[in-house]
Formats: sequence, C-alpha cells, structure tokens
Amino acid sequence: MTKQELIDQIKEKESFLCVGLDTDINKIPKHLLEEEDPIFEFNKQIIDATKDFAVAYKPNIAFYEAHGVSGWESLEKTIDYIPNDIFTISDAKRGDIGNTSSMYARAFFENMNFDSITVAPYMGSDSVKPFLEFKDKWVILLAVTSNEGGKDFQFLSSKDQPLYEHVLTTSKQWGSDENMMYVVGATRPEYLQSIRKIIPNHFLLVPGIGAQGGNLQEVCKHGMNEDCGLLINSSRGIIYADNSENFAESARSEAEKLQKQMSTILNK
Amino acid sequence: MTKQELIDQIKEKESFLCVGLDTDINKIPKHLLEEEDPIFEFNKQIIDATKDFAVAYKPNIAFYEAHGVSGWESLEKTIDYIPNDIFTISDAKRGDIGNTSSMYARAFFENMNFDSITVAPYMGSDSVKPFLEFKDKWVILLAVTSNEGGKDFQFLSSKDQPLYEHVLTTSKQWGSDENMMYVVGATRPEYLQSIRKIIPNHFLLVPGIGAQGGNLQEVCKHGMNEDCGLLINSSRGIIYADNSENFAESARSEAEKLQKQMSTILNK
Repeated sequence: MTKQELIDQIKEKESFLCVGLDTDINKIPKHLLEEEDPIFEFNKQIIDATKDFAVAYKPNIAFYEAHGVSGWESLEKTIDYIPNDIFTISDAKRGDIGNTSSMYARAFFENMNFDSITVAPYMGSDSVKPFLEFKDKWVILLAVTSNEGGKDFQFLSSKDQPLYEHVLTTSKQWGSDENMMYVVGATRPEYLQSIRKIIPNHFLLVPGIGAQGGNLQEVCKHGMNEDCGLLINSSRGIIYADNSENFAESARSEAEKLQKQMSTILNK
Repeated sequence: MTKQELIDQIKEKESFLCVGLDTDINKIPKHLLEEEDPIFEFNKQIIDATKDFAVAYKPNIAFYEAHGVSGWESLEKTIDYIPNDIFTISDAKRGDIGNTSSMYARAFFENMNFDSITVAPYMGSDSVKPFLEFKDKWVILLAVTSNEGGKDFQFLSSKDQPLYEHVLTTSKQWGSDENMMYVVGATRPEYLQSIRKIIPNHFLLVPGIGAQGGNLQEVCKHGMNEDCGLLINSSRGIIYADNSENFAESARSEAEKLQKQMSTILNK
C-alpha cells in the first residue's frame, strides 16, 4: 500500500485506528473452541465487526508461532481474510544479517501479503534494507517502545542524544517516509515533540493505548502531522472487551468509540 | 541443557563447533528436490554426517518461515531429529513486550524443544526475562554482531562505554552464566578482551567464521575461558561445501577440519 492510499483511507473512515490481533486461545470466548480453527474464527469475527472503524490490522506474530504449524495456518488465513484496502502490519520485531532479513521479507511480504513488518534496529542498516527492496511495502522500525524495559537502553545518551534519536537520525536515510514508519509507545508522549523535529513526515505506529495506559489526546497533541501521521494501536481493549458470545459486537462498540474520538480530533 | 552438560560434551567431542542450519531450497543439491520434504531431508543428512563433530545445531528460523506452514513443518521435524545430547539454538532474534516474549518462549521452548533462543536487546529487561523463566533453557542475547550494520548503533559511546558494553553490564543481572550467553561476531575479535572483563564466565556464541571472514585462532586467543566458553558457528562453509550428491560427506569433512583445529586449541 502507498502512503497516499493510507492517507485516503484515514480521511474516508475518519479514523487512524489499528486493531491488534494478539489472539490468545486462553482468552477467546469458550464457545469458539468448538470451531475447527478457533483462532481464525475469532479473528474473522473481530475483522467483520471492526473493519468499518479500523484502517489497519496488526497480528502479533508470537501469538501464532506459539501454536507451531497450526498457528501459521491461522495466521495465513487471517491475512488472506483482511480486506485488501486495509493496511496490514506483521508485528514480528525481526532483524538479522542481510541474507536472513531477506528471508524474513520473503516470509511476510511474499508468502503472506503483509503491507509492513516491525523491525528491531540493533543490527543496523543491512538488517533493515532487505525489507525496503519490496515495492509498496513498509518497515516499521522500533524507536521508543511502550514497555518498562524500553528505558534500559533506548534513553542512553550518546553525543547529547538518546539512543532512540540516533536510531531515527541514522535510519531515516535508509528509506523515506514512503516506506518507513516508526514505533513510538503511547506511554511516552513527552518524547513526541523532539521525535517530530527529526521525522516530521513519517507515520508513527503507536501502541500502548488502553491496557498499557497511554492517552490518545496526549499522543495526538504532540505526534500528529498534516497527513495525520499516526496509527494508534489498540489490542486487548478491543478484542477482549467482552468474553461472551457477544464479543464481536462489544469489540465493534469499543472500536467505534475510539473512531469517534479520532474523528473529532481529525476534524479540529 | 545445563551448562555442565554442555561443557562435558565439549570435552568429550573435543569440539565447540555449532553447525548453522541456514537451509535454503535454492542452494541444496538438486537431487533432494524430489524428496517429499527436501529441507528436512537435507538437514537430516547434514546432522547424520556432522553430529560426531558438532556440539550444537542452530537452525536459522528465517529460512523456515520463508516457506510458511511447510517451512515450520520442516523445522519441527529437524528439531525432533537432532540428538537430545546436542545443544540446540533457535536463531530467531526475537524480543517484544513481556506477554509477547512469553509467547515466543512457548513457541521455541515448549512447542519445539529448543535449548536456547537468540534475542535482540533493544526492548530491555521485560523483553528478555520471560525466556529466562524456563528451567535449563537459555537466552543468547545479541551483543556485538558480525554484520557491517552492527557498527551503526552497537558502538555508540555513552558514559565512556559503547552500547554493547551497556547491554552486557545491564543484562548480566537479569540471569546468570547458567541461563544466558551472548552473541559476539567473529569479525570483531578485537573486542573480546574487554568483553571478557565484563562477562568472564558466560558462553559466547560466535558467528562469522568462514563465509563472513572471521578467524578461529584470533577468536579463541581472546575469547576462551576455563570452561572453553565458546560456541563457534559455521553455516555456509559446512552445509554448502559441496552441491553434489556427496554434499553430506563434504560437510562431514569440513566439520571434521574445524573440530581438529578446535581439538588442538583445547589441548594447548
């Protein structure tokens, strides 16, 4: 998907919501366990219920790998089921030497038709560039993560700049705002202003709203740009809103709530 | 596997060789393509041919994921086929927020019975600790990688120490030398002395011998400790030594050459 197509979708739906498909067999409604593929069945119903309000879906790959072969089957069925005009993110946090990153790119961009993949920056340029060779596919590089341990290394200061700023400054030269985005956790909105000085035009994928405690208004205040420039992810707050047979309706209602808030912000 | 069991195996085989199973369908001998599962058949013959000389096998997960469901089937058969007394490494470079790393741990330690997994440090403590909760399982954390891009961030200096030293100093408190190892690329042996001052007792997984240009003698001179403390990986130099029907014999011969050099070093 191109940047313009993503922006058009945001305008049309008045939403920049990404729904995280962290589908855990132990958390989905019990009645689904009778299905042949409960994980896919859950995702299917969540997608049907939320697709009017979501511009992106983000399967968390670990939750599928945990089930081995059958998990990959559920994942492949899920990516095939997501409507083509919605942006898809393989939340995989991959990154390895060049020939190996090429194989991961093949896994997620060719074998499965994901639009993007999250990548960890520690191994540097040649671990990221193989993903950028695919037309209309995106790397979403970790900058500031939403978890407690994000502090361990991401804020270490070198030449008066924290590590994550070095990651932004160096990596933005590897691609452009047409094929790279960055992960910036919603739990650290105070860094968004300085981040926007380095990458004014890139989209940011922002996890951490909801279960992790991030605040939508704060994130938008400091992180939004003229194109919107944000994909705000919510996983648990939407998909596990309700554990009953009405789970999909409840997920729809939670997604709609967020979309309404987003619509108000976009129209300001 | 415990540290003592690994050390015992190294003494018995007079080897600290890890064979990397970066099995690429485009590089394996053509006659194997007639098999039902060419990737597993290749691995099986490589394992049979090299197991007398190798103390560890390291499937590179990207090469299996690139084939989707069938790749995971090949991977699961491979891990089941490796003899139980040989150390196994899932070279996966994973790492995510706590609940997600727990899922990756389940994928590689429970669903498949790997002894260890390589993990990227960027997301910090809570991305690593879930892997350390499994008894006799290991995290192999990236410190200094062998690729060109390793320079982009790993050597950034903060408080007079490069980032990779911060990674060592901070992360060694999360576990012990009984459940953590570190990746240090053979292409950068000059850093091994300072690394050994920080982590004298941890095992190091050293990729980059062979195709990537690292030197075995140099690595051993600066990196070896009383327990040996090294697992030296060779992938392409062994498994693709020969593209004919004799590939397994050639792989055996290359593995034996390395084992002989290692034996000489160990007996010094």
